[in-house]
Amino acid sequence: MAPLQGICRAHTNIALIKYWGKRDQDLILPMNSNLSLTLDRFYTDTEVHFSSDFTSDRLILNDTLQEEAETQRISQFLDHFRAYAGTSLKAQVTSYNHVPTAAGLASSASAFAALAGACNQALALGLDLTTLSRFARLGSGSATRSIFGGFVEWQKGTGDKDSIALPFDDAQWDIGMIIIALNKKQKVISSREGMAHAMATSPFYSLWPALSKEKLAAIKPAIKAHDLQKIGEIAEHHAMMMHATTLSANPPFSYFEPETLVAIQAVHQIRQSGIPAYVTMDAGPNVKVLCHYSDADRIMAKLQDHFPSDQLIASKPGQGIQLLDHLEALHA
Amino acid sequence: MAPLQGICRAHTNIALIKYWGKRDQDLILPMNSNLSLTLDRFYTDTEVHFSSDFTSDRLILNDTLQEEAETQRISQFLDHFRAYAGTSLKAQVTSYNHVPTAAGLASSASAFAALAGACNQALALGLDLTTLSRFARLGSGSATRSIFGGFVEWQKGTGDKDSIALPFDDAQWDIGMIIIALNKKQKVISSREGMAHAMATSPFYSLWPALSKEKLAAIKPAIKAHDLQKIGEIAEHHAMMMHATTLSANPPFSYFEPETLVAIQAVHQIRQSGIPAYVTMDAGPNVKVLCHYSDADRIMAKLQDHFPSDQLIASKPGQGIQLLDHLEALHA
Repeated sequence: MAPLQGICRAHTNIALIKYWGKRDQDLILPMNSNLSLTLDRFYTDTEVHFSSDFTSDRLILNDTLQEEAETQRISQFLDHFRAYAGTSLKAQVTSYNHVPTAAGLASSASAFAALAGACNQALALGLDLTTLSRFARLGSGSATRSIFGGFVEWQKGTGDKDSIALPFDDAQWDIGMIIIALNKKQKVISSREGMAHAMATSPFYSLWPALSKEKLAAIKPAIKAHDLQKIGEIAEHHAMMMHATTLSANPPFSYFEPETLVAIQAVHQIRQSGIPAYVTMDAGPNVKVLCHYSDADRIMAKLQDHFPSDQLIASKPGQGIQLLDHLEALHA
Repeated sequence: MAPLQGICRAHTNIALIKYWGKRDQDLILPMNSNLSLTLDRFYTDTEVHFSSDFTSDRLILNDTLQEEAETQRISQFLDHFRAYAGTSLKAQVTSYNHVPTAAGLASSASAFAALAGACNQALALGLDLTTLSRFARLGSGSATRSIFGGFVEWQKGTGDKDSIALPFDDAQWDIGMIIIALNKKQKVISSREGMAHAMATSPFYSLWPALSKEKLAAIKPAIKAHDLQKIGEIAEHHAMMMHATTLSANPPFSYFEPETLVAIQAVHQIRQSGIPAYVTMDAGPNVKVLCHYSDADRIMAKLQDHFPSDQLIASKPGQGIQLLDHLEALHA
């Protein structure tokens, strides 16, 4: 590999205890500590190359050179690494998102985690993973957690230095997630806007930080005990509390689409039929189903009563960031 | 009219500041004062006849003799009037619900208000309307408000004696409501069960009484000012806060059906197009649209892009209970 070059893979993650609300917009410090599961099925591979040959930063995403606007967020992120390394070299970032379009998942978590790992390698910074999670956080809050695999806690911390991710459980047991992909349209309200509006105007938001702390404390022993029922009940309740802060915002809004309710009702029916399956949702209409990975096939078979199979994607837990020898193009 | 006989009409009402949660299950005392609009389009006509000829109470609803279970709730309600009048005479209750089946509206509000008015007449009790509202409350909470027309406040009071309705504004101005009737199925979770579960398990419910008091104080001057925008914004926010207490209950639940979201989105589009129209919802999937009555036709025309015309019913404000000379059967 050429000098000042690094290639890294990072997987996306889905929060079970949600990150919802920032206490510092610039440093991206969350209102509450939160916890996620990294997923094997969705990842971003990113190469970064710093060189004096480049006169400006460039971003090539899925073989397409990106416009100024998209590149700017990456440049600002690279600045943190340049400042740390004491260099002003410009960089070329080449990235492939291995997230099926239908999944409708935000790719910023895996994107910034992969870029952080690639920068660490390219600039030979020797940062440990927890420190890297702090850097990733400055790109996108949820990227903090994608540095690690399995169940990951993002501790809110007291400030920039200790608002970091820590691995909590390697998830090497029978756990998985099914994505029910409902809507490929661009989100009407971004998660950034949505959490800011809910935090500013929902009268219920004042209770959110303390409630989230309670839920986090409750889910941790359930994860250690591999108690899917308890994990699922806590995660579903916490996710719906988050969505209750949008419904109670002023003016009210919701990320739910009609099909979201079809999906939730379908999961509840599956659960009533005796298969443990629990809903979580983020700032969009898609429904994610937490389940035993060994049950994924029969759950997906039942979900096909309501949704075409190409809208259903199951995943095992994924690992943390990994350095790669070379960048592979997207499979067709 | 024969002695010990009374016939009365009462209209249904839709709350703008919701009744959601009881502080006393037996006396039906609400957690918060609330406020409704009585609707002209939906009403119940009820005749009651007390006589020593009857050996038990009988209820004939829409020309069908009701079973023991349905009759029992009516008997218990009649007991309050019998106790007050010092009689033990049994009664026959004949009732017609003039609520289109498609409207999917709970008829208990108009039913118990009409029966209260009929009992007052039959037993020559001479109760004033506010006292009658207290009796109606013992049948069904929302019946308290159906004693009066226009905008009506149900004051939570300090106990049985002063938890009563008072007329607030006669609504003789350009205001109305459109019912978008979405689901004729029996409710899965009754309002009684839903409010009890939300009150017991939603961590956000603790804020509900104080928030409702604030919203009630804010909507009253807006009603007096005939400020539809402000009334609508407050009502929509309060309704969505109520539904946020179901979404945040443990386990979470929702009265929303997929079509509910279609209806809400349609109303928001209509509002964005410049026609004032605001959503309220009760413990069921139907959406009610608060608007200028003079706009009802063009709003319904736009709603017909999404819903058949027989699912859309517009209403002007209605009046309070009225005594009738004779009972008319249902129009075919």
